[in-house]
Amino acid sequence: MFDNSVIDGKENLCQDLEEYYVNCIANALKRIRVGGSDYQSKLLDFGVSNHDVNSLRDINSLPFTTKKDFQENYPYGLFAVPLSEVVRLHSSSGTKNRPKIVGYTKNDIRNWETLVLRCLMMHGLSKDDIVHNSFGYGMFTGGLGLQLGVEASGATLVPASSGNTRKQIDLLRDLKATVLLSTPSFAMHLSEQSEKLNFDISRSPLRLGFMGAEPWPVNMKQQIEKALGIKAVNIYGLSEIMGPGVGVEDPNDSDSIILWSDHFYVEIVNEEGELVPDGCYGELVITSFLKEALPLIRYRTGDITRIVKRKGLSGVWVERIASRSDDMLIVKGVNMFPSQVETVLCDFPELSPYYLLEIEKHGFSDHVILNVELSRGKYNFERSQIYDISERLRKSLKDDLGVHIDIKIFNPGVLERCESKRKTVNDKRENADSSYIA
Amino acid sequence: MFDNSVIDGKENLCQDLEEYYVNCIANALKRIRVGGSDYQSKLLDFGVSNHDVNSLRDINSLPFTTKKDFQENYPYGLFAVPLSEVVRLHSSSGTKNRPKIVGYTKNDIRNWETLVLRCLMMHGLSKDDIVHNSFGYGMFTGGLGLQLGVEASGATLVPASSGNTRKQIDLLRDLKATVLLSTPSFAMHLSEQSEKLNFDISRSPLRLGFMGAEPWPVNMKQQIEKALGIKAVNIYGLSEIMGPGVGVEDPNDSDSIILWSDHFYVEIVNEEGELVPDGCYGELVITSFLKEALPLIRYRTGDITRIVKRKGLSGVWVERIASRSDDMLIVKGVNMFPSQVETVLCDFPELSPYYLLEIEKHGFSDHVILNVELSRGKYNFERSQIYDISERLRKSLKDDLGVHIDIKIFNPGVLERCESKRKTVNDKRENADSSYIA
Repeated sequence: MFDNSVIDGKENLCQDLEEYYVNCIANALKRIRVGGSDYQSKLLDFGVSNHDVNSLRDINSLPFTTKKDFQENYPYGLFAVPLSEVVRLHSSSGTKNRPKIVGYTKNDIRNWETLVLRCLMMHGLSKDDIVHNSFGYGMFTGGLGLQLGVEASGATLVPASSGNTRKQIDLLRDLKATVLLSTPSFAMHLSEQSEKLNFDISRSPLRLGFMGAEPWPVNMKQQIEKALGIKAVNIYGLSEIMGPGVGVEDPNDSDSIILWSDHFYVEIVNEEGELVPDGCYGELVITSFLKEALPLIRYRTGDITRIVKRKGLSGVWVERIASRSDDMLIVKGVNMFPSQVETVLCDFPELSPYYLLEIEKHGFSDHVILNVELSRGKYNFERSQIYDISERLRKSLKDDLGVHIDIKIFNPGVLERCESKRKTVNDKRENADSSYIA
Repeated sequence: MFDNSVIDGKENLCQDLEEYYVNCIANALKRIRVGGSDYQSKLLDFGVSNHDVNSLRDINSLPFTTKKDFQENYPYGLFAVPLSEVVRLHSSSGTKNRPKIVGYTKNDIRNWETLVLRCLMMHGLSKDDIVHNSFGYGMFTGGLGLQLGVEASGATLVPASSGNTRKQIDLLRDLKATVLLSTPSFAMHLSEQSEKLNFDISRSPLRLGFMGAEPWPVNMKQQIEKALGIKAVNIYGLSEIMGPGVGVEDPNDSDSIILWSDHFYVEIVNEEGELVPDGCYGELVITSFLKEALPLIRYRTGDITRIVKRKGLSGVWVERIASRSDDMLIVKGVNMFPSQVETVLCDFPELSPYYLLEIEKHGFSDHVILNVELSRGKYNFERSQIYDISERLRKSLKDDLGVHIDIKIFNPGVLERCESKRKTVNDKRENADSSYIA
């Protein structure tokens, strides 16, 4: 249950701030209901009226919005304004289900631009930069969302979009990009492919990268930084809330992300949906109270993290997000996240960060195989050495995850590469999703 | 040679207008030379100084800019401002060669937005429209260029981008788009695929389409209008000059395009580069005198057309563009354009508009085969009827093009479809390009 002491601690919200959130969220509720969407009935059923939101306690007891609400109200049922006021539609990847359709008014686009700009400027993007944007353009918010901030900065935008790695490498080399925007997987893929084409990307003018749309551990960040010769910055966002730019890595602490608390109200809840105290892990819940077209009340993001600190309206610091509640695998009754495997893997310089977890049912028992690759071109191992790496990895995984995992080590470049988001799990058990895209 | 009578005719430029062009183009020349690009040396070698441009006669004798200039000055050599003032880069398709890199300052983007907006508003786009944009996003100017105008209009933009036809049909149906932006080929492909999925796109809310990036004859426009139940509008542009929106179909005359003469100076020249009188066919030459990042002097577009009328700064009307000088095929010593084949083909309702021209060398002689398809599902022909169609088509082509072409008729859906620009020619002769993308 909600514990009032959570917001009465020493790093707490001041009276003014409480008033700000209460006003903004009461307004958002009003807009949702004026919008006449299906979404309102859920709130009305819950007994929410304009007079019900007077304190943080009231906010913290509003009903959650979930992915299911998007499914049930597809395509426009969550919108709080008529379509004639919506200037842009995007969608969030619907790998298995209908895509989640999201909308923006002119003001929403302006706010999006401002927040992405904040993220980029905070890490030193300037008008002299040439910014190569490899995030996918189109319905995905990545490409067009980041473009807003880049153009506002006055830097030179190269709208490369995703795919066609060879052409992207030509453009990076010829146009002399100084900043790369991409998923962490694509950054690794670019470095690998550049090497094949005898282009030493680490000696190119690239100096900075903004990466996201996948969870990536800090040691993968270090690998990318080394391979590309850049500073790699974690940029956070999700289409349902806005797109990229909901938050960005703290320039002084790569382990935490600043979420823009003047635009989003941030909570962390446990599996039962109960608020947990700052500092405790749980699921990130965001209320996008300033959004006009699609304000969401207490949206369950699925991202697992914890609040590190709050600094009024300048931001809420959360820990770098390593996993999502949807990604959790239950293997032999043990909860595990692909990101845990990744973190262990990144501590083995002999191995590349590409991997594929395969899970099979043998009789009544789960059987997990981790397919990995040797690092490209740097090692020439004997059979006994490979056996040794395999044993050390197996032991590390058992120690960290508590699960026995069989290891298969391949030559460099054997595992499938992906030009956008990675496929890291192939769960072959009955009733399991056949694959999971990170 | 340049003939002064061309500009002394009754539909001619008034004194003020001449002054406008002379001032603008003299300024553009100045900017190019201040920019310090390689491009200037060509102009200087030609003997151009600020004092040299005092009349239209002077403009009409400036050197041309060609595709070769892009090749030789790749990537940034034609830019007239430092990169720090360039906010966006795009590229024009370099099927065979290096892509042509083009750049925009903030003002250039603003002007682009205005001109695309003019094109769309002129044909009745309103803020109540939902606009599905199937033009490719990324380095191609189609997607992002048209997006500028759509967003400025306040309509709801669906940035679908190209590819993934199935998903596009889901979006068109579910989001209830009223306007489609696409290549003519993709519009036909959408209608064909929708039929397969039992979605009657002609009864959907779609009412209007803006199409371009390929030449398409008027009878293909009529086919598209019927299949999709829309008004299909020809939108003209090329990346080197700006992107889509350089001009648009006259709302009262589908055979002509209005080019925005307050932004572009328009000439028509013969193969030797000599100005031809208004009304005569030749190659369209455009000077983009207001562009800051990349003003081009007398750019040879490759598009074949003629000037229909001039109305001062409100526009220059040119005939709908059916062919490009680059597309010209020389077969048995005869010049022919794929668009001529297309026009003949569209007069055969028994046949679909998909086709592939194959050209082979048999000994010393060229041999042309036209692969076509029967129209989908509407006919159930006997062998003798197909023979009859084939003979009529062969005769029409011989009459119109003066070349004997063998006909191969296939069942509907056999020829390869393309999700972006069509492939219409496969020239297998030695020294010929192996394929041509319209």
